[in-house]
Amino acid sequence: MTLQTSLSEIRFDPEAEGAGFDAAFIAVEVARLLHEGQETAIREFVESQELADVAALIDELEDGDDLGVLRLLPMHDQAEMLGYLRPRAQVDLATRIPRRELVALMTAMSHDERADLFKQLDEEAQEAILPALSKAEREDLRRLAAYEEWTVGSVMTSDYAVLKPDMTTSQAIEALRAQAIEAETIYDSYIIDESRALIGVISLRDLLTARPRQRVDEIMDTEPVWVRADDEQEEAARLVARYDLLALPVLDNNDRLVGIVTADDAMDVTEEEVTEDFYKSSIVQPLEMSVADASIALLYRARIFWLVLLVFGNIFSGAGIAYFEETIAAHLSLLFFLPLLIASGGNAGTQSATLMVRALATGDVRPADFGRLLSREVLIALALGLTMALAVSVIGVWRGGPEIAMVVALAMITIVLMGALIGLCLPFIFAKIDRDPAAASGPLVTSIADVLGVIIYFNIAARLLEL
Amino acid sequence: MTLQTSLSEIRFDPEAEGAGFDAAFIAVEVARLLHEGQETAIREFVESQELADVAALIDELEDGDDLGVLRLLPMHDQAEMLGYLRPRAQVDLATRIPRRELVALMTAMSHDERADLFKQLDEEAQEAILPALSKAEREDLRRLAAYEEWTVGSVMTSDYAVLKPDMTTSQAIEALRAQAIEAETIYDSYIIDESRALIGVISLRDLLTARPRQRVDEIMDTEPVWVRADDEQEEAARLVARYDLLALPVLDNNDRLVGIVTADDAMDVTEEEVTEDFYKSSIVQPLEMSVADASIALLYRARIFWLVLLVFGNIFSGAGIAYFEETIAAHLSLLFFLPLLIASGGNAGTQSATLMVRALATGDVRPADFGRLLSREVLIALALGLTMALAVSVIGVWRGGPEIAMVVALAMITIVLMGALIGLCLPFIFAKIDRDPAAASGPLVTSIADVLGVIIYFNIAARLLEL
Repeated sequence: MTLQTSLSEIRFDPEAEGAGFDAAFIAVEVARLLHEGQETAIREFVESQELADVAALIDELEDGDDLGVLRLLPMHDQAEMLGYLRPRAQVDLATRIPRRELVALMTAMSHDERADLFKQLDEEAQEAILPALSKAEREDLRRLAAYEEWTVGSVMTSDYAVLKPDMTTSQAIEALRAQAIEAETIYDSYIIDESRALIGVISLRDLLTARPRQRVDEIMDTEPVWVRADDEQEEAARLVARYDLLALPVLDNNDRLVGIVTADDAMDVTEEEVTEDFYKSSIVQPLEMSVADASIALLYRARIFWLVLLVFGNIFSGAGIAYFEETIAAHLSLLFFLPLLIASGGNAGTQSATLMVRALATGDVRPADFGRLLSREVLIALALGLTMALAVSVIGVWRGGPEIAMVVALAMITIVLMGALIGLCLPFIFAKIDRDPAAASGPLVTSIADVLGVIIYFNIAARLLEL
Repeated sequence: MTLQTSLSEIRFDPEAEGAGFDAAFIAVEVARLLHEGQETAIREFVESQELADVAALIDELEDGDDLGVLRLLPMHDQAEMLGYLRPRAQVDLATRIPRRELVALMTAMSHDERADLFKQLDEEAQEAILPALSKAEREDLRRLAAYEEWTVGSVMTSDYAVLKPDMTTSQAIEALRAQAIEAETIYDSYIIDESRALIGVISLRDLLTARPRQRVDEIMDTEPVWVRADDEQEEAARLVARYDLLALPVLDNNDRLVGIVTADDAMDVTEEEVTEDFYKSSIVQPLEMSVADASIALLYRARIFWLVLLVFGNIFSGAGIAYFEETIAAHLSLLFFLPLLIASGGNAGTQSATLMVRALATGDVRPADFGRLLSREVLIALALGLTMALAVSVIGVWRGGPEIAMVVALAMITIVLMGALIGLCLPFIFAKIDRDPAAASGPLVTSIADVLGVIIYFNIAARLLEL
C-alpha cells in the first residue's frame, strides 16, 4: 500500500473529509519508507500536506525518524512546522538538532515562536545559540523572551510590516512585497514616525483599492485599536475578537510600536483562558500546560488546595446536623431526604453561577445588570423550586407520610431559592472585589448551599414537626 | 463638555487605553447633540470610532435616536455596523427602518449577516423585502437562510473572491481589486472550474510575491483544507483553528464551492460552543441566545429537566441512608462526617471530569489515551485521598474518638478514589457512545458519587464498628 492510498482510505477524522489524516497510522508507513531510503516518496507526501498535519506526523515518529522527516522539508517549512508542535515536543526535537542546524532553523522561525522555544531551552542550549545569531536577532529574542508569561508582550511577535506615511500606495505595495517573506502578516501594516510611535494602520485591501498615487497617510486609519505590551494577554484577545482584527498593534509605555498580536495567536490565548475558566469552575488551579503533559505531582498540587479547604468548609454542614441530632433521632426518616435536598440547592446554584460567570466573561451581562438579573432569578428559582417540591412531595408522602412531605416540599422551595441566589450573587461579589468571577465555582457554591441547606431543612422540620 | 473630552476622560474599560468608550455615557451626550441638531459633530465622532463601538452606542440610544445616528453613517458603514449588533437589537432596528431604506441596507450587508437578519424577521417583513431585491440576491438570501442552525452552511458567507486558473498573477490582483468592495475577504481567493468545483486556493501574499506573469494554477494550493456545507459548524471552527486559516472554503455534496467561513465567524462559533460546554458542565441546556435576552420561561425550561432528574437520582442516596438506619441510630456521630465525605467524592470527581472534558474538547487527549490516564489518575486520587484523610482524621478523633476517625479516614480515601475514577471514566464513556463528553457534568458526577459515597461510608462503618 502506498502512502497516497493509505491516506485516502484512512483519515484522522472521517467527518473531516477536507483535511487531516491518521497521523499514528501514517507514521508507521513513513518510518518504513524512511528505513528503505525512499526519501523522495516521503518528501512528495509531506509537501502536499498541511504543516499542522506534518507536525502531528512528526510528533508520532520515533526519535531520529522525526529528524529524518523534518530535514526533507524546505527550511522555511521546517521553521513554520515547528510552531505547530506542542511546546514539549518542540523542545525535545530542538535539543536533538545539531547546534548549527538549530540556529538556521530558529533564524527562519517567526519571532514570537522563536522566543517561546528559546525560553523553554535549558541555559546551556540558550548560551550555545545566542552567539551564533546576528546582533539584531539576539536583541529581538532577548526582548521578546523577557516579557512575563501572562502579558501581551509574551504572545506578540516583532516581525510586522511597516510603512512610511509619505509613501504612495503603489510604493507601499512594493514595500510589502519586499517584507512578505519575513513579516508574520502583510494584510495589516503599520505606519510609524522616526521615534517608532504608531501613527496609523492600513490594510492591504485599502492599499489595493486606493488610487496608485495616493499617499498612505491620506487613507490610513489614524485611530487604530491598540494595546500595551504589559497589559494582560486576555485584553489583546478580547480586542481582536471585539473588533474582528487580523492583527492588533502593541505599544510600549512610550507609545512606540513593539509588536503585533495576530488573530490566530489571539485565538490560542482565548483557548488558554477558556481552559483556565473551566478549571476554576471545578476548583482546579491553572496548569500552564496540557493535562496530558502534566506530571502527577503538578496535578496533585493543582487539585489538593481547594479539596482540603472544602473539607473544612463542609465541617459546618456536619455541625449543622449535629446541632439537630435530637430532631433527627426522633424522625430518622428525615435523613432519607437529606442528600436529595442539599444536592438540589447545590445543583440550582451551580446552574446560576455558570450562567452568570459565562455571561460576565463574554460581556453579555455587566455588573450593572445585577439588580434586573436578581429579580428575574427569584422568579425562575421559585418556579424551579415549586416543580421540584411537587416531584419530591410525592416521594415524601410515600416514605414518611403527609407531614414529612410538607416539610420536604417547603424545604425544597427554600433551598433551591437560596442555592440559586448564592450562585447568582457570588460571581458578582467576586467581580466587585476584583477577583475572577470564574472562581465562583460549582463546588464552592455547592459547599455553601450544603451548609445552609442542612440548617434550613432541619429548622423547618423542627418547627413543623414539633407543633 | 464636548464629546471628544468626555471620550478621553471616560472609557469603556480603563485597562483598554487603545479602544472603546463608555457607550451608556456617550449615548446621553449623543442624544443631547442630536436633539440640538448638531449632526455634524456626531457624524465626526462616529466616523472616527470603530464600528463595533458605534454599535454599542446605537444599542444604548432610545428608539428613534438610534435611527437618527445610524443615518449619519455612510451606507457601507451602516451595513457593517449592523453586523456588530446583537441579533435582537438588529431585528428591533430593522423593523423600524422604512422598507426602501432597509432594502438598500440589506443589499450592502455581507451575505451571511444579511441572511441571518432575514431569518429573524417576521414573515410579513420578509415578504415585503424579497421582491425589492435583485433575482441573484434573492436566490442567494434564500439559499443561505435555508441551512439549518447548527450547520457550516448557516455560518458561511457567499461573497468570496474567485479567480480563474489561467489568469496571470497580475491579472489576478486586478481581478481582486475589482472584487474588493463586495468580497468578505480578498486575502484568500478561490479558483474554480466551469462547474464551480474548487480546484485551488491562493493567498494574496503568494500572488504579490510571485512573478507578475506566472499563472495562478502554477502557484495555487491544489489540496486546500475544506469542509462540507452540511457538516456541523464546530467542524469548520476546528479546522480554522487547527490550520490557522483566514477563511475556509465550503463545498456542497457535489464538490461545488458554495461559500467560505471566515476566521472571525469561526471564532464566534467557538465562543458559542464553549458557552454550550459551560452550560452542559452545569446541567443547563443550550439557550440559543444570550442569557440577558432569554425569557424567564426559556431559562426555566433550560434548567428544570436535569434538576428534576437528579432529584430522582438522589433518592438512591436517601435509600442508602435508610438501609443503614440501624448503624446510624447506634452511632449518630457518623452523621457529622456524612456531608463532608460525600462532598469530597463529588468535588474530586468534578475535577477529573472537567480536566478530561476539556482535554478531549481541545484535542490534548484522545480516547485512545484512556489507559494511561486511568493509571495516572489512580495515583493522583490516592495521594489526594490520603491528604484529605489525614485532614479529616484529626477532626474524627476530636468529634468521635479514634474508631470513628479510622472509619472516616478509610472512607475518605475510598470515596475520593471512587469519585475521581467516575469523573475520569464518564467523559470517555460518553465519547464512546457518541454523546458529547461535556454532558459528564459536575452535578451528574456528584450525584453518582453521592450514592456510592453513602454506601461506601456506612459499609465501612458497619463493618469496622461492629467488630
